[in-house]
Amino acid sequence: MEGQVKIKRVLISVSEKSGILRLAGALKSYGCEIVSTGGTRKVLLEGGIDVTDIASVTGSPEAFGGRMKTLSFNVCSALLFDRGRDAAEARDLKIEPIDMVVCNLYPFKKFMDAGSDIDILVENIDIGGPTMIRAAAKNYKYVAAVTDVSDYEDIINELRGTGGYLSLDTRVGLMRKAYNHTADYDALVACAMDERFGERSVRLGFSRGKMLRYGENPHQRAWFFAENGAENPLYDMRVLHGKELSYNNTVDINGAAEVVRGMKKSGCAIVKHTNPCGLCEGDDQRRAFELAWAGDPVSAFGSVIAFNKKVDLKTVEFLALDSADRTARKFVEVIAAPSFSEDTLEYLKKHRDIRIIEYDMSVGSGKYDLKYIRGSLLIQDHDDELRSKFEMVTVARPVREDMELFEFGMYAARCVKSNAIAIVRRTDDGFLSLCGMGAGQPNRLNSTGLAIARSLETISNECSGDTGVDIYVKNQMAKAILASDAFFPFPDNIDECAKAGIKTIIQPGGSIRDRQVIEACDRNGIAMIFTGTRHFKH
Amino acid sequence: MEGQVKIKRVLISVSEKSGILRLAGALKSYGCEIVSTGGTRKVLLEGGIDVTDIASVTGSPEAFGGRMKTLSFNVCSALLFDRGRDAAEARDLKIEPIDMVVCNLYPFKKFMDAGSDIDILVENIDIGGPTMIRAAAKNYKYVAAVTDVSDYEDIINELRGTGGYLSLDTRVGLMRKAYNHTADYDALVACAMDERFGERSVRLGFSRGKMLRYGENPHQRAWFFAENGAENPLYDMRVLHGKELSYNNTVDINGAAEVVRGMKKSGCAIVKHTNPCGLCEGDDQRRAFELAWAGDPVSAFGSVIAFNKKVDLKTVEFLALDSADRTARKFVEVIAAPSFSEDTLEYLKKHRDIRIIEYDMSVGSGKYDLKYIRGSLLIQDHDDELRSKFEMVTVARPVREDMELFEFGMYAARCVKSNAIAIVRRTDDGFLSLCGMGAGQPNRLNSTGLAIARSLETISNECSGDTGVDIYVKNQMAKAILASDAFFPFPDNIDECAKAGIKTIIQPGGSIRDRQVIEACDRNGIAMIFTGTRHFKH
Repeated sequence: MEGQVKIKRVLISVSEKSGILRLAGALKSYGCEIVSTGGTRKVLLEGGIDVTDIASVTGSPEAFGGRMKTLSFNVCSALLFDRGRDAAEARDLKIEPIDMVVCNLYPFKKFMDAGSDIDILVENIDIGGPTMIRAAAKNYKYVAAVTDVSDYEDIINELRGTGGYLSLDTRVGLMRKAYNHTADYDALVACAMDERFGERSVRLGFSRGKMLRYGENPHQRAWFFAENGAENPLYDMRVLHGKELSYNNTVDINGAAEVVRGMKKSGCAIVKHTNPCGLCEGDDQRRAFELAWAGDPVSAFGSVIAFNKKVDLKTVEFLALDSADRTARKFVEVIAAPSFSEDTLEYLKKHRDIRIIEYDMSVGSGKYDLKYIRGSLLIQDHDDELRSKFEMVTVARPVREDMELFEFGMYAARCVKSNAIAIVRRTDDGFLSLCGMGAGQPNRLNSTGLAIARSLETISNECSGDTGVDIYVKNQMAKAILASDAFFPFPDNIDECAKAGIKTIIQPGGSIRDRQVIEACDRNGIAMIFTGTRHFKH
Repeated sequence: MEGQVKIKRVLISVSEKSGILRLAGALKSYGCEIVSTGGTRKVLLEGGIDVTDIASVTGSPEAFGGRMKTLSFNVCSALLFDRGRDAAEARDLKIEPIDMVVCNLYPFKKFMDAGSDIDILVENIDIGGPTMIRAAAKNYKYVAAVTDVSDYEDIINELRGTGGYLSLDTRVGLMRKAYNHTADYDALVACAMDERFGERSVRLGFSRGKMLRYGENPHQRAWFFAENGAENPLYDMRVLHGKELSYNNTVDINGAAEVVRGMKKSGCAIVKHTNPCGLCEGDDQRRAFELAWAGDPVSAFGSVIAFNKKVDLKTVEFLALDSADRTARKFVEVIAAPSFSEDTLEYLKKHRDIRIIEYDMSVGSGKYDLKYIRGSLLIQDHDDELRSKFEMVTVARPVREDMELFEFGMYAARCVKSNAIAIVRRTDDGFLSLCGMGAGQPNRLNSTGLAIARSLETISNECSGDTGVDIYVKNQMAKAILASDAFFPFPDNIDECAKAGIKTIIQPGGSIRDRQVIEACDRNGIAMIFTGTRHFKH
């Protein structure tokens, strides 16, 4: 059998001992000799497994409080010598090959996470283990390096299937895992030592890289990786139907999912170029979708849409994909949700290109937010504090003390790129809905203008006839809340709001001209609430 | 001397041999015994340095084609035993301490970069070296682990100053470097093995972490790191004056510098919330600054500004920082440039808060663009192809075949967040200048509207009186170029352009409605150029 290696002699030295008896038992059943060290040997002996003491291989005692157990000319040679080229030399030196190392390392991370003192940390830097693992991995053509308890079962099965052999494929897989394991281990040690002695350092590992069709643009190649040792909801999303996901889809799916995953009721976000142009939350999914769509029906075409609940047929029928009137069909790029009912899938699949994405929204967003720029890395906490207060700063009071709506407004502004303005409303049937937003502008007045213009259109569109439009718009604008991600630097924004009929503004406050801004509100009968918490997002 | 260790016995085994004779010579002069292996021993002997053969320490021969040289009970013990706790045991076992390891590893990277075959790669995975280094580092209380040629000189100086001793501080520093070195090494090996066997993986390391005042917002903690083994122009920028840089400053400085660093003539970029709201290139720095500022004088307040040449006094006097009229003073957050003349610095320092940044713009932007999102990593090529063609697609031809201006237009659109529209112009005195831009909109019509409105204002502002404004604006708009980062999905944008008097449009093309878009141009006497290259940027 090409590339097969009979496992005759195994060195086992494990810190994590679960599963080891089962593996050793299986190896024994194929006549394998097991060499082992201190604690591992004890466990194996107690489990009734006959073990060769490592000292009889090394020719040296276990020494120095366990710092020296396996490290020796004999053991290293037994792992490292080339079974072809070096066979005669090994015979002369009386080196008997070891065909497998089963080793996991001192639990350095456990002590690090526990904040152990430096001496305990250092004692838990494994020296022998990585040497055995790295040596076995280097000689993968002849030796198996087993470092992961979760691989035991596959190994047992393969031994069973072959009568005690492991294939080259298996050994290559184990070798790669082995070097990744020692790389992770030293990454941990290096960062911990840096930190203990006053320097912060970070090491990140990513794997399962897949090439994307292209990057942000067709002339840019792109790849997508999953972070090692982290939850990967984005990487692990499932494409149930449709064209391959693009780089931009991937970014927008994350953005849309992040917006809706925090919502308790049925939420819908419609994202275009990383900004939500539609956003709604309420008791009914179809209605939430309709209202989100109404927030910017032009931009919604070709958008990425996320729902936070299982999607039902009634909801997606809004897309009118099978309408006889082609212009009535609403084309979107992506629909992402935690799940889809069967009939929903069936309906959506009528459109060849639409991507249907199953996305696990129960997973948190990880510890930090990372931004890589030109050989440097910026790390920050996620922006997950919505407000530190609600402080009424004006003479006028809001039309309604609708705390849910105030929070929704600031939430929407937080989701939009800075400078961000969001105008939100509670609809007459109780949904929280984005009427319009202004995004990504170099000055706030632009964003305010964009949000107002968009909102006026959204609200006007709700009127079927011409009669009463003005009154309807006026009433709705008066019920709406304008939220700003950061303070207003000048009162000019307030004048624009007043002209548009806005009656309530919510913003962090904190400008040196707050007084003038508040005065402008008072002059215009506008209620203003300070939240104390800015939400720049770029 | 507390924490000092006399270096009596040193193990030297280096792949990179530069500087080693000098270090060994210095060690010898303090009576140190030098133990060495194969190639290193030869170099030292040839250099006239007396060397103990490693075999007399290990008690074993060099074996298996060099795979076994240092790995042995004796050498590992000599590095690892605790000089306090284990002293008696070491005496019993006849282990003589080794106080320093000088070791750098097989040049795995060299062979990897050269695309060597797998057997050569594997032969160049160092096993003994990392073991010696890691063991010495673990025992840093007594042993020095020297892994970097660039540390030799400091070590020689310290030995000279102390008569052959190294301090605890030095050994701690070496220990941290050692674990970072082995972490880097195994990161390289792990990724190379993954790649050779069909999986892409990435490992990144960052150090020199410093805490920033806060992140994008005050309630978010933030840190700033330099990437290991990369050029770090952003991290290494020097704050010559002013308040500490914020997270947002840092991001914008990079953005602004990236915009101007590619320009040949004097360039100025004014960035606000990551978008350039002002941009100009030409023969005179002061004039370029003025024109960039005129692109959006409201947004320019509190902005981040970058120049690509040494900044001179005349340029910054435009800020009027010492004007008697306080309202005439132009406050900006940051000015970044490769350098500043002395009198410029003096002038700028009059303003306490202005940050003056020396930024090395000669450094490239690194291999890839990385985006980290929620446990996954997107990697793509930088967007560094401006256009694949210039194709005239309309009946009308541009007023002038100004290729430089066409490229400048597309360059400006590429710098702006999508959907991006940039209106640019060659001024009558020959400068390439951004008149106005539309950024970050969910639909292109919004961006077009923003860019046009801004440009009309920029141009109107140039007229001192009322006479002839309309004609002037009309003439200037006719000379301007409107550039779009991606195709126009509908002809509606063209109608807007026509209304505003735009005569030339440059865009990638590629919409299914290109024909209608071109027809709209022809109807309006507008010239249109297709570039074939999209520039989404989010």
